[in-house]
Amino acid sequence: MAEKKQQTKAVKSLTETQQQFRNAMSHLAAAVNVVTTDGVAGRSGFTASAVCSVTDSPPTLLVCLNRNASVYSVFQENQVLCVNTLAQNHQQLSNVFGGRTPMEERFAQGSWHQLCTGSPVLKDAVVAFDCQICQIVSVGTHDILCCQILETQMNHGTQGLIYFDRAYHNLTRHP
Amino acid sequence: MAEKKQQTKAVKSLTETQQQFRNAMSHLAAAVNVVTTDGVAGRSGFTASAVCSVTDSPPTLLVCLNRNASVYSVFQENQVLCVNTLAQNHQQLSNVFGGRTPMEERFAQGSWHQLCTGSPVLKDAVVAFDCQICQIVSVGTHDILCCQILETQMNHGTQGLIYFDRAYHNLTRHP
Repeated sequence: MAEKKQQTKAVKSLTETQQQFRNAMSHLAAAVNVVTTDGVAGRSGFTASAVCSVTDSPPTLLVCLNRNASVYSVFQENQVLCVNTLAQNHQQLSNVFGGRTPMEERFAQGSWHQLCTGSPVLKDAVVAFDCQICQIVSVGTHDILCCQILETQMNHGTQGLIYFDRAYHNLTRHP
Repeated sequence: MAEKKQQTKAVKSLTETQQQFRNAMSHLAAAVNVVTTDGVAGRSGFTASAVCSVTDSPPTLLVCLNRNASVYSVFQENQVLCVNTLAQNHQQLSNVFGGRTPMEERFAQGSWHQLCTGSPVLKDAVVAFDCQICQIVSVGTHDILCCQILETQMNHGTQGLIYFDRAYHNLTRHP
């Protein structure tokens, strides 16, 4: 989702296998997150659904990022990031951080503060994970950023925004 | 979720940091999957929410698995797996594959067939990804299994089952 517009533009040159993979993967529902950073290389952020828990020893999550993404070098140089898990009312924020909006305009939306790494933390995120990147693994076009979680922030009672079948969804507790 | 009972049992010995991480991570919603394998080491399967898309060049996803899990060696030896993304009506199947039920009883539930790797494929899964494990990365207690997707199966119009805040949820399309 971070490179949604690029993907749409590139769609003509996709192989049948890639298109089939994307169609199938669109049916694996995922939470929508805005991943941010700030540091020596500047401030940056993008929308991502490819975020996943790894282990609690030590507390670690991972984020997948295309090495050709415009934001890639900023994250690689800063070596810190915050995963901000979006709430049901954050659809516009997801679109802004998932498109080609200039970085300053992206951060003009939402209300931000900082925890220990200095990465922007969305005050009303469902949950936020403030992290140090500790291991990078390349797989095809993408890097898996393995991140140690240094601090967390939670807003209890807030429901997450879900991306499924190329559309936003809300959650309803199972009967 | 694969080791839910073990986690509950071990809860007394968790550090405060680990407990905090688990609470925070429970608010990152995720699709529920049953990950299966079959091959020289036998047939096995477990429930997992730590599954994530990586890249479409080549089509790759990842699955995180505790190296101490009872099923670990079977997956490592077989080198193939199928990620079966569960539908809203698969709550019981999720519980059976997430608990301590003997393997034969697990597969007695649900209706299975095979695609090219021979791993069990759930016929009515929202989507199924039949994969070859191509790269294994150790992070703390867990391994990240990077898997090349060889074949997919989709059931259009089926809604996924979501795990959030330690409970099952259904999806409702965003207004």
